[in-house]
Amino acid sequence: MDIKTHTADLLAGIRKTSPLVHNITNFVVMNSSANILLAIGASPVMAHCRTEVAEMASLAHALVVNIGTLDEQWVASMILAAQTANKRNIPVILDPVGAGATRLRTEMAQKIMAEAKISVLRGNASEILSLRSSDVKTRGVDSSLAMSREVADTAMSMAREMDCIVAISGEKDSITDGGRMFFVSNGHPLMTRVTGIGCGLSAVTAAFCAAAEGDLLAAVAGAHGYYGLCGDLAIKVSNRPGSFFTAFLDMLYTAGPEDIHAGLKVDAS
Amino acid sequence: MDIKTHTADLLAGIRKTSPLVHNITNFVVMNSSANILLAIGASPVMAHCRTEVAEMASLAHALVVNIGTLDEQWVASMILAAQTANKRNIPVILDPVGAGATRLRTEMAQKIMAEAKISVLRGNASEILSLRSSDVKTRGVDSSLAMSREVADTAMSMAREMDCIVAISGEKDSITDGGRMFFVSNGHPLMTRVTGIGCGLSAVTAAFCAAAEGDLLAAVAGAHGYYGLCGDLAIKVSNRPGSFFTAFLDMLYTAGPEDIHAGLKVDAS
Amino acid sequence: MDIKTHTADLLAGIRKTSPLVHNITNFVVMNSSANILLAIGASPVMAHCRTEVAEMASLAHALVVNIGTLDEQWVASMILAAQTANKRNIPVILDPVGAGATRLRTEMAQKIMAEAKISVLRGNASEILSLRSSDVKTRGVDSSLAMSREVADTAMSMAREMDCIVAISGEKDSITDGGRMFFVSNGHPLMTRVTGIGCGLSAVTAAFCAAAEGDLLAAVAGAHGYYGLCGDLAIKVSNRPGSFFTAFLDMLYTAGPEDIHAGLKVDAS
Repeated sequence: MDIKTHTADLLAGIRKTSPLVHNITNFVVMNSSANILLAIGASPVMAHCRTEVAEMASLAHALVVNIGTLDEQWVASMILAAQTANKRNIPVILDPVGAGATRLRTEMAQKIMAEAKISVLRGNASEILSLRSSDVKTRGVDSSLAMSREVADTAMSMAREMDCIVAISGEKDSITDGGRMFFVSNGHPLMTRVTGIGCGLSAVTAAFCAAAEGDLLAAVAGAHGYYGLCGDLAIKVSNRPGSFFTAFLDMLYTAGPEDIHAGLKVDAS
Repeated sequence: MDIKTHTADLLAGIRKTSPLVHNITNFVVMNSSANILLAIGASPVMAHCRTEVAEMASLAHALVVNIGTLDEQWVASMILAAQTANKRNIPVILDPVGAGATRLRTEMAQKIMAEAKISVLRGNASEILSLRSSDVKTRGVDSSLAMSREVADTAMSMAREMDCIVAISGEKDSITDGGRMFFVSNGHPLMTRVTGIGCGLSAVTAAFCAAAEGDLLAAVAGAHGYYGLCGDLAIKVSNRPGSFFTAFLDMLYTAGPEDIHAGLKVDAS
Repeated sequence: MDIKTHTADLLAGIRKTSPLVHNITNFVVMNSSANILLAIGASPVMAHCRTEVAEMASLAHALVVNIGTLDEQWVASMILAAQTANKRNIPVILDPVGAGATRLRTEMAQKIMAEAKISVLRGNASEILSLRSSDVKTRGVDSSLAMSREVADTAMSMAREMDCIVAISGEKDSITDGGRMFFVSNGHPLMTRVTGIGCGLSAVTAAFCAAAEGDLLAAVAGAHGYYGLCGDLAIKVSNRPGSFFTAFLDMLYTAGPEDIHAGLKVDAS
């Protein structure tokens, strides 16, 4: 099946079954991530207390772990929830917000990846590349070069080494499982001037993974394509950030198969 | 006085006196609840630190306790604030978000109700019914049947047993003090696709209760009717969630006596 | 240079260099403050964990400390971040949300000011005046009299005593370093009916201070003027709070030198 039809089918699946996405995420985006998930048809729940995360993850169809506004106390909850998700074989998306900027973020992201199995690691180039082991060679990478061949190559090495899907957001998104590679060209630069848009993509990726029955890589690529496409459609309504975000939420609610077939820009390399 | 005139009077009272509503609420909705309270003319304050909640509750005209994104550390603050509110005889609204989903939520909601007097328990059917004692008999209730006669009967039993007003939100809202019962038909299904709308109703209920001098039950019913009415008016502006929520806030700020007389759908059973 | 040209230059500097503004702020406004900073062209980061605040403050160009939804555990992080900022000589803006309302807020704001050097203290009259020492004489001040000569005089005494800029928001904003005084007449009352607008001004003030090379007082006055001007422009789009805030974010993104020259109302006394 081609990626457009596949993406449209996954979206229809989300809207039909409303998968429950458990988010342990940062304070800045809790509201926007919940609204983004509701707009595409998923059911969000936010829960971080160590006493209940295992129980909540047991009810969920996917888990998002996002380390923005991280507090050390939360890390144990994140790991416990991820391990519970692992036992149940539901997808776990890790968004390593700010990894590379402070040691706490970098080390805690690494710790989470060491103690639980992550299905998808999603972030921008500098965040993702800060998490590579010294075995993964790169020649000094700048996030502005995010979509260079070099970043894509590093992503592929990381995906193999970590045995997970690596999704690097940028002007063009690179998504790989270490074997195949997808590039996504949807999306607009204004999306970087609204907070929580990246974190919302991690949540949407979780919903698409929850709806996927087999091919998780195509689901991640489809999620990125659809999300960027809704940005492409929203920018036609407004090129200013306040009204753009309103339009973006509207598009996540309304954009359907016809929009996907007309505008999805996802290419296998 | 009929319920429409009564509701319009309460709204006018809120806009005139700006009652201070103290919220101990979840991270997802702190911003939206504050904006919803400001839009109707109330004054919100969010404060959860154990050291200050008693002092803050002493300044307030109503208290909202909402257990979404619950952390065990917050429960002591919730109880202390509620006990302070009890001493001052100001209304306490409990929104048991997620009760029934995890043991932590169910047990903490029950603990709060055991240690303080709640004026209004407001949530959806599955949340509220998860808090009934085994003495309150129900025949297996599904939240999709929320507005069935059975749920209404259970609400009435719970209200009597717990000696508080029970307000169950759904396609039709059921509000009872164990004696009288109101049904509210205002509101639109899109309100369930925007996060924080339910929590915002708990906050608005607190403001209406703060403005009420006598009949708390009619105030709760009026709050539900007015809130749903603003949804009815907003859906005429937009049927997409981003722009709907913007329009909803606008309506909470502008809808007045004429709108209430034209559109409030609150019936005593 | 006149204040209009100076303000336009600072704004251009923010948009060109995207200063990193580190916020330790309250849960209610984390999202809105981030969006406000992004809209004017700055780069926001929210981080509060004691383990990382010194490292994050070391990367930043300005620091905002905001005590809304305060928790005692956060105060140590606030002080550590502020002391780090002091060592690096970057501006520190303190927003004492709720000071005067509870002892915790008042005392913690005073503690922060005692243990670190604050560049700008920004809030409404009742918050700021609650922090004056007993040496600063005032004759019973009501916040409704915020812009009275008396408040301005007190602000000037406080600025001298505390050796920082004091900015009091109100119908007319008063901004002083204890020597010079600016009054800002931009802004609209509807800005008080949207949550986080005051806190967002503290964040914008931080960005302007980060862009200032010399005259911090003029930067603070310019920030207040520009921010209020965007409110003046947004109110022409909508006088209802939901759509007003959307328009306000849009204006923060688009309003430029021409708008500043046409509409900035900043006067030196």
